[in-house]
Parts: sequence; structure tokens; C-alpha cells
Amino acid sequence: MLIVKKFGGSSVADKDRIMNVARRCIEEYKKGHEVVVVLSAMGDTTDDLIAKAKEINPTPPKREMDMLLVTGEQMSVALLSIALDALGVPAVALNAFQVAMHTTSVHGNARLKRIDTERIQHELDDKKIVVITGFQGMDKYDDFTTLGRGGSDTTAVALAAALHADLCEIYTDVDGVYTADPRVVPNARKLEEITYDEMLDMATLGAKVLHNRSVELAKKYDVQLVVRSSLNENEGTVVKEEVEVEKKLISGVAADKNAARISLIGVEDKPGIAFKVFNMLAKENINIDIILQSVGRDGTKDISFTVEKDCLDEAIQIIEKNKDKMTAQKVESERGVAKVSIVGAGMMTDPGVAAKMFEALYNEGINIKMISTSEIRITVLIDELDADRATRAVHNAFKLEE
Amino acid sequence: MLIVKKFGGSSVADKDRIMNVARRCIEEYKKGHEVVVVLSAMGDTTDDLIAKAKEINPTPPKREMDMLLVTGEQMSVALLSIALDALGVPAVALNAFQVAMHTTSVHGNARLKRIDTERIQHELDDKKIVVITGFQGMDKYDDFTTLGRGGSDTTAVALAAALHADLCEIYTDVDGVYTADPRVVPNARKLEEITYDEMLDMATLGAKVLHNRSVELAKKYDVQLVVRSSLNENEGTVVKEEVEVEKKLISGVAADKNAARISLIGVEDKPGIAFKVFNMLAKENINIDIILQSVGRDGTKDISFTVEKDCLDEAIQIIEKNKDKMTAQKVESERGVAKVSIVGAGMMTDPGVAAKMFEALYNEGINIKMISTSEIRITVLIDELDADRATRAVHNAFKLEE
Repeated sequence: MLIVKKFGGSSVADKDRIMNVARRCIEEYKKGHEVVVVLSAMGDTTDDLIAKAKEINPTPPKREMDMLLVTGEQMSVALLSIALDALGVPAVALNAFQVAMHTTSVHGNARLKRIDTERIQHELDDKKIVVITGFQGMDKYDDFTTLGRGGSDTTAVALAAALHADLCEIYTDVDGVYTADPRVVPNARKLEEITYDEMLDMATLGAKVLHNRSVELAKKYDVQLVVRSSLNENEGTVVKEEVEVEKKLISGVAADKNAARISLIGVEDKPGIAFKVFNMLAKENINIDIILQSVGRDGTKDISFTVEKDCLDEAIQIIEKNKDKMTAQKVESERGVAKVSIVGAGMMTDPGVAAKMFEALYNEGINIKMISTSEIRITVLIDELDADRATRAVHNAFKLEE
Repeated sequence: MLIVKKFGGSSVADKDRIMNVARRCIEEYKKGHEVVVVLSAMGDTTDDLIAKAKEINPTPPKREMDMLLVTGEQMSVALLSIALDALGVPAVALNAFQVAMHTTSVHGNARLKRIDTERIQHELDDKKIVVITGFQGMDKYDDFTTLGRGGSDTTAVALAAALHADLCEIYTDVDGVYTADPRVVPNARKLEEITYDEMLDMATLGAKVLHNRSVELAKKYDVQLVVRSSLNENEGTVVKEEVEVEKKLISGVAADKNAARISLIGVEDKPGIAFKVFNMLAKENINIDIILQSVGRDGTKDISFTVEKDCLDEAIQIIEKNKDKMTAQKVESERGVAKVSIVGAGMMTDPGVAAKMFEALYNEGINIKMISTSEIRITVLIDELDADRATRAVHNAFKLEE
């Protein structure tokens, strides 16, 4: 069996943790499996490097920044390889150049294009554990790139796809994917299985276990993922295409407090206005999430949408500057909001799910500001202060702890 | 003009020093010169990385160790490139893979074989300052290598040769090459010029300004070297093939306290014994320096030689184990010795030089234990405690301060 194992920065933060990771890799190796390990930079290394660069230059050139940051993962892989040798197992550390991990040239946010597997295969044939830098790649100009947030997860999944691995294990500091954040809902239950689509919605909607880019990739190449803890031997959660039939309607509740609402009031009711607004914001890299457009009234309509809290001020500035083009009579905004979502492939077939969610919120006296739905997801926008209470109420209503 | 500038680890140890290096590079760039910069790892980075690895594994595999260590220079070059950008000058940082700095596969002590100049030339044509990692290379298996002690100097000289640079400046924390160590001989004089051969002898004999491998390379490819300080604007010392005719007999006095003496007493006077002894030590990587063999007496002779202090115990062990093969009646050793040498291309033509040196030592009451000479060098082995006094006496005798 060929297994790709990915460990995050906190799992390799110091000597003892590196030895722990080495031991876990050796367990599988001794069973006769082929093992490929993907690592992030140790602990706070990446943040420290960014701080060092910004002290010298508040706006460091992105190519040079990538050149700096990739040293972090290279240190991790070299040290793990040295640790594996100390435990008597041959290992080899490889960076993005040595593997040939081809990406686009967008420094700081590159996309993987192609991974050469020849060198890795050759080292596996030599009975070595192969330790590979996550998060980084090389572009067609022979320059280092980095993959942006969640990059190491993406590297691991992409490697698993390229190597036709039997399994891709993402080790993190939680046991797996839960029906809700266990810090908010004490009786949240760990899921044994979840589908790619459900996981995608959970990731996008605030469950921080896996980055959605890596889930998309796993779905595309049908890579079987397992999310599990590097701190214990618990089984974790399997992410795959189809899960068992007797499963529940709802897989989990996700809450995202990093949201703010903007409303354009009294926009002219003619085609193209919404396009103009969102195009303007997209150009400045401001991501729009839930969008709601009211039916027209007196020839005008209202457009509401959410953005990340950090982007609110910038978004408002852009809109105020272009208020005339947008024909908006008034711009309103609200910072203290949160999204609470239920996710589940089963809800497609059950019209009562939305009603049950709204009822649970009504019983708690929680006011819903906006609603957005997809086939496998219902999201409500509520007051940020109500978020934890809403999560618990919905979790209880669907008996997810059972 | 194309200039290669090399800065050591202490010159880039922190933010302020990196900015200082950036400013010095920009001075030449603004004059219209093409500038290639070679850097070592910042301050104690390399030692810190070695310590980290040894904590995990006391005998880390050398390939993985090189993989770890090369991150040090990559950080330096990225940060300098970021600093140059902050000062408004376009720059690009390149590592050994990006340049294609081909070496042998001896990890930890590789030799440069070939440097591709295409990428560097292309970046220079783009009006960029090109910042390149010193000390490191890549081998034919696409693995990182390191060049061993003085490696960054070697990188700089090799790059200057490959690029046909007009000048290779080695920046260090001293002003240049002195007639003797200024800490020992307060009136030691900075040399304006010195030949490659003299510099080689000075380097080998204890003057720590330049590593001899880099001087050998400079001589081979006729690269004009300048040794100067990164802390001031002083002119430095030019190292080249021929220096002005009216030069002094003697260029300088070098002292090396890192020496120990071993003597094999009463060795059989037959061919091949000396070969056996030195071959045995060479196999264990113990470098032999001065060798002295006495004339035979009663069918036996004495063989004396010096080794580095650190190697004395190991050398004695090897010899004791093989005493019979060596036919030695007795093995003697002495740890507290030093080599003091005078170096100068002029001495070839003047038979009085040796006599003058010995007279100076006699006047100081310093006993000479061994003598070794070459065409441009005279070395004496004396008591370690006499080394500084001997250096001053010889310096004065030849009036090197003038």
C-alpha cells in the first residue's frame, strides 16, 4: 500500500514532535507500506520569516518572499529525514525542485499544474521513506512559488493523486471532522465518514480542519482522505465520494464568525447592476459570500451580501466611491454577524430540513437576517452574539450527537 | 565592468548589516557596473542548524545535512534581494539549483565542477543585481551539496571566473591582508598587493583572511581578487599574478598555533617506511604538514612531522597500533608547538633571508625545533608560547612595517 501522510507545522514544532512524527511514519513502513510524508514549516517559522522580511521591506517582492519562505519547509523535511535515520530507517528529503512540482507563476498563491513522480518512485523503490516539502512549487522560470493558505494539504492530496496512493492522511491537532465545533457544542460527535461535497461545504463555511482547495482536488482525482490527530491513535474521519446509505440527513453544523454584511439600498432595477458591483469588488480581491437580492419595489431593489470582516472597510470605500455607478440610494453595513450552516448530502431529498432548522432558531429567539441554500447546505446569517447558541440549538434539533 | 562581491555571515548577521550590504552593492550598480553578490548564511545560522540536527541525530546523514544547511544561504540571499528592492533597485535571489552550480557528490566537502551562467547573464541583462547563495551546489543526482570550509569564497571566485568578471571582491571583517596578525604585531602593515602564491602560503600557514582553495582557483583562472572590509571604505589588498617590481623581499609573517609534533624515533633505514606512515594517516583523513627526516645513524633514522592539534590523539593511536610495521623504536609527541612562517616571492633571489630570520629568533632566545622551506616560504616550528614574540621579532627584523 502507498500512503501519503501530511503533518502540519505544529506537529513538527520541536525535536520531540519531530521524533513522534518519525515514529508514526515508521509504524507503517515496518508493515511493508510505501510511505511519502509531506510537511509544513516548523511551528512559527513561516510567521517569523515574514516578520523578518517586513522589517526590511514593508512590501517585499513576492518572488523573493517565496524564495525566503520555502526555506521553512526545507528545514522540516531535512530534520525529519535526519530523525528517521536516527531510528534506523533510510529516508530522503526532497524539495519542490527535486520532485519537480510544477505550478503557475502566481507567487504567494500558485496552483499546482503537474508533479513528476520519477524521483519519488525511484526513492520508494530504494525502500526509503520520502519526505517532501509541502506548500511550495517551482514555475516555468525555475523560480520557487508557494501555494497560499492550506498549501501543504493541497501538496499532499496532489501527490497522492499523482502517485495513485491508496490513502492520503492529513494529520492535524483535532481527531477528525465533527458534527460541530466541540468547543461550542460539547456533545458534538466525530464523523466516521463524510462526502467530498459535504466536506467542501464544511470547509468553506468555517470548519477549519481542511482547506477547500485540497478537498476539491481530492474529489477531482478520487483520492481517499483521512483526517486524524497526530497526538493520538484515534481513527479519524474518512472523506470520500459516497458514504454509507443509512447515514443521517445532516453531517454537521458549521459556524463562521468572520463575516460582515453590506446592503445597497434602492438600487435601480435594471440589468447589469449586480454584475458591476461584484466585478468592482472582485478586482480588488474582495471575496463575496452570501448574496441576496430583494424583489423590486418602486423600480428599485436592495442587494445584500457578506464579506470577510477584515475586508469590510475596504469594500465600503470602493462602494462609496462608485455609489453613482451603482445607482444605490444608501449603503448600509453591519460588522457583528455570523454564518451558521447545516451541511448534508441527505437533505436534498428531505424538504423538512430547512423548516426544522428555522424552527430551532425561532425557539431560541434568534433572528435570521439572510438565508442562502444549496442542494446540500442551508446557511443563515444571524447576530454574531447568537452564533454559539444557534449552533448548539441546531445540533440538538437534528440530534447530531447520536 | 562586471563585479562579483562576496560577503561573509557576519556582514549579513542582522537587518542593519543587510541594509549596509545592500547600500554597498547599489553604489557600484549606480555607477553602471553589473553586480553579482555571493552571500554566506546569516551570523550563527549554520551553527544553529548543525546543533538542531545533532540534537536529533548525533551522526546525521551527510546528504540530509546539506539539505538542511543550504537553507541558511537561501535565507540570506532572499533577504538581501528584499532589501535591495526596498532601496529601489531590482534584484533577484538565486540558489545553487537556479544557477545550476554543478559539483561533485561529496556531501559536506564537494568541489565545484561547472557553473552555468545563462540565468545569471539573463538577469544582469535585465539590469538586476543578482544575489547568489555561496557555499552550496547541486550534484548530478539533483541533490544539494556544500563546499566545506571557506566555501563561499570559492563560490565567489568560481563565479567570477565563469562570468569573466573584471573583479572579485571578498568582503570580510578586516581591512585586507597584513604583514602579520595586527593583534600580535601592532605595527603590522596592510599590503596593497600580494601574489597568488604568497597569498596561498599565507592562507595555508595561518592567516585566516582567505581560504586557500579559493586562492588556488583565482590563480588558475587569473581572477583578480580584492580582500577588503565590509565595515569601512578602505582600499583593501589586491591579490594577483604579478606585483610591482620594487616590492619587498618578504610579504608577511604568518603564525599557526594549531599544530602538534609527532616523532618516530629509531625507524629502520630502508625504503618505503615514510610512505607507509603517511599513507596510513592519510587514509584516516589526517593531514600531515611539515615533515623532517633525519640522516641515518646505526642503520636507523628519525621521522618527525606536524599535524593539527585536534588530530594528535587519533594520529598517535593509529601509529601505536602499527608501530611494528613502521619499525619505530619509540613514538614521541608534543602538543604545545606553533609554526611561524615568512612568505615572499622576493626571497627566491636572496640567500640571506633564512639567516636573517634565524638570527632574529636567536636574538630573542627562541629555540627552533624544525625548519621547512619552499621557494617563497620559510617555516620554523617553535614552542607555542614563543609564537607571538617570534612573529614580532621577525616582523621587526625585516622592517615589514615600513
